[in-house]
Amino acid sequence: MAIHGTEGAGMTTVGILGGGQLARMMALAGAPLGLRFLVLDHVPDACAGQCAPMLLGDYSDPAALAQFAERIDVATFDFENVPAEAAQWLTGRVPVFPNPRALATAQDRLAEKTLFRDLGIPVPPFAAVETHAQLCEAVAAIGTPCILKTRRLGYDGKGQFRLKTPADIDAAWAALGPQAASVGLILEGFVAFQRELSVVAVRGRDGEFRAWPLTENWHVDGVLSASLAPAPVDEALRDGALAHARKLAEALDYVGVFALELFCRDGELLANEMAPRVHNSGHWTIEGSETSQFENHLRAVLGLPLGATRPIGHACMLNWIGDLPDATAVLREAGGHWHDYGKSPRPGRKVGHATLRADSRQALADALRRVGEALGRQAQVAPVIARLG
Amino acid sequence: MAIHGTEGAGMTTVGILGGGQLARMMALAGAPLGLRFLVLDHVPDACAGQCAPMLLGDYSDPAALAQFAERIDVATFDFENVPAEAAQWLTGRVPVFPNPRALATAQDRLAEKTLFRDLGIPVPPFAAVETHAQLCEAVAAIGTPCILKTRRLGYDGKGQFRLKTPADIDAAWAALGPQAASVGLILEGFVAFQRELSVVAVRGRDGEFRAWPLTENWHVDGVLSASLAPAPVDEALRDGALAHARKLAEALDYVGVFALELFCRDGELLANEMAPRVHNSGHWTIEGSETSQFENHLRAVLGLPLGATRPIGHACMLNWIGDLPDATAVLREAGGHWHDYGKSPRPGRKVGHATLRADSRQALADALRRVGEALGRQAQVAPVIARLG
Ligand SMILES: Nc1ncnc2c1ncn2[C@@H]1O[C@H](COP(=O)(O)OP(=O)(O)OP(=O)(O)O)[C@@H](O)[C@H]1O
Ligand SMILES: Nc1ncnc2c1ncn2[C@@H]1O[C@H](COP(=O)(O)OP(=O)(O)OP(=O)(O)O)[C@@H](O)[C@H]1O
Repeated sequence: MAIHGTEGAGMTTVGILGGGQLARMMALAGAPLGLRFLVLDHVPDACAGQCAPMLLGDYSDPAALAQFAERIDVATFDFENVPAEAAQWLTGRVPVFPNPRALATAQDRLAEKTLFRDLGIPVPPFAAVETHAQLCEAVAAIGTPCILKTRRLGYDGKGQFRLKTPADIDAAWAALGPQAASVGLILEGFVAFQRELSVVAVRGRDGEFRAWPLTENWHVDGVLSASLAPAPVDEALRDGALAHARKLAEALDYVGVFALELFCRDGELLANEMAPRVHNSGHWTIEGSETSQFENHLRAVLGLPLGATRPIGHACMLNWIGDLPDATAVLREAGGHWHDYGKSPRPGRKVGHATLRADSRQALADALRRVGEALGRQAQVAPVIARLG
Repeated sequence: MAIHGTEGAGMTTVGILGGGQLARMMALAGAPLGLRFLVLDHVPDACAGQCAPMLLGDYSDPAALAQFAERIDVATFDFENVPAEAAQWLTGRVPVFPNPRALATAQDRLAEKTLFRDLGIPVPPFAAVETHAQLCEAVAAIGTPCILKTRRLGYDGKGQFRLKTPADIDAAWAALGPQAASVGLILEGFVAFQRELSVVAVRGRDGEFRAWPLTENWHVDGVLSASLAPAPVDEALRDGALAHARKLAEALDYVGVFALELFCRDGELLANEMAPRVHNSGHWTIEGSETSQFENHLRAVLGLPLGATRPIGHACMLNWIGDLPDATAVLREAGGHWHDYGKSPRPGRKVGHATLRADSRQALADALRRVGEALGRQAQVAPVIARLG
């Protein structure tokens, strides 16, 4: 597939399932490539609708999907929890990237972790849980602390229950047991990690693989709070992480951008999960690398040459959850970049982010300190500054 | 004025008069700031309409302007030849930046050159021309070679006639004389320059002034063909150019981005014209500097802190005129960035550009050589490579 600058004849329209900030940033990144977009979302004020034409409809409504398929040349995702049947149905009409199998695997923590293990990518101990009795067995086998999670439809730490001791089994079952039949459950060993890292990588239709520098991430209440890239890690760790990501992408015949989230414990990497889409921990690539994850995802999906993933200096992304702080503290910084997703505020909602970019770690730490103070968000920037220091 | 991330209440809508590629790139740069846009254009398929809501109407139609004014919070321009009265009328309704006086001055080559001269900014000799007799007098006074230009509504070298000798007077009058009454004429001495440079700069509502590194430009048939930044110039020349730009911005109480085009002859700078808007010679700032001209224009217009104008490496912009070449030759380059304006091809039309970015002059020259060869556009890249070499 080629891109075309001409109206009428050869124009390419990319369909995006889901109209959140990822679709929005994809549309903004794709316009310079001459691409048109059509976003499918069931919420009329989905924020991508401010930047691209939107079709209002449900992913599982065949009529909406048919209308969608008719107006697009290729389909991709802003949201990974699109029903597998919908993705499968679409593949009969238009090219769909990533492929439905990759999507289905990433949608299910059990399938995902099983694949990781099969590929030789280390994972925390895990076990499928369908009944209270199986939960007891799994806790006995894995030990505490551990985490009970829904296999499907979890995001931002939702659908998780932490067990400190076996005495928490009943509470965990009370919290998530009712969902065992609908979305499935998995018990995982709790990893006492020192660091969380992610590989954001892209694979082209021709199999070319490129990864951005490793990103280090900090979560608060299960939600990403800050990302730093390039993560200060030694080469061996980086090469190991990249090798895992590449193996995974190849096994799934993956096309597009994805993120592999890793725990780092005592210098050892354990895979947590993969996101089969552009990822929050890759937002820094907009300013902090030669080609953003959004543009490279589109290049991959369209079969265009992949862009360089080299970093430009050092970048830190700060997530804005719930509501936006005052933009001016960020805009005053020489390397300060603001991203307002055009959403209304709501507790726990990702409404925007800022990226600070600098030529040195020291300059980045200084900028973070100033922004943290100006916004009264010292706690958000502190771990990043500590890592840089 | 502040920006707001909330829907409903505080959202800011920027109105843009004119819906070409400048408005398009402004809308793409403004979305991350949480801005909404409304573009006014009389052409239904104006390319900014693919990226922002558009109002179809004429700049000089009071009803269209009234509708436009009602839906926006602040107005700015993609197109400088908006009737001065329309801009003036708008200022009674919403803040308008740049101010109508700056716009009116830049619209008229005579007013513009007179201001340059009054400010002590060197200009080629010039004279107003209303009749054939005045043309004869002006040619006698200024000498040949010289250029007869329309005072208003010229762009991309249109509305110009070059006189090599006084024998060309009748041909020049035949070509442009009929427009003397409607748009006015000016005769300018022809400058045998070695180089063309531009200052792209921004001035905030609080008077803060920032300029990007000087840009060197190459024109073909009066239309910009390539830009290189930072232009390899000595400090004194750069400081002189920046001082001219600052003086001009202050004299006009200018708010927003503008470009000052300069000829460089034997180390001396002569002002050609100013563009009261983001400018083609500043497109490289999207990838080649910390803050793009588009974002900084919006920051200025909204009274937000101005972004850093520091360069990121070395950048060359290549204009695509008429139709787009094959994108892959550019996308294959590590620092290759593609900009398709979503227009249909038409001879002489600016349909897109590419920016090549590199960490060194040598790497940029190498990339230009490869792209020039792959596209059979050696002539377009040759002068840039020569300058870098
Ligand atoms: N096995 C584990 N051991 C220790 N901490 C964990 C474990 N699983 C999850 N966490 C913590 O909770 C965070 C969110 O977990 P996870 O990534 O599984 O959930 P999610 O809902 O898919 O999140 P996201 O949408 O951010 O990817 C992790 O980043 C980590 O901080
Ligand atoms: N006085 C002059 N002496 C020599 N060359 C000139 C002169 N005036 C214009 N030119 C050449 O013609 C080009 C276009 O001229 P000018 O900028 O006045 O026209 P324009 O139509 O306003 O162009 P644009 O839209 O690109 O700004 C200049 O960049 C320069 O190459």
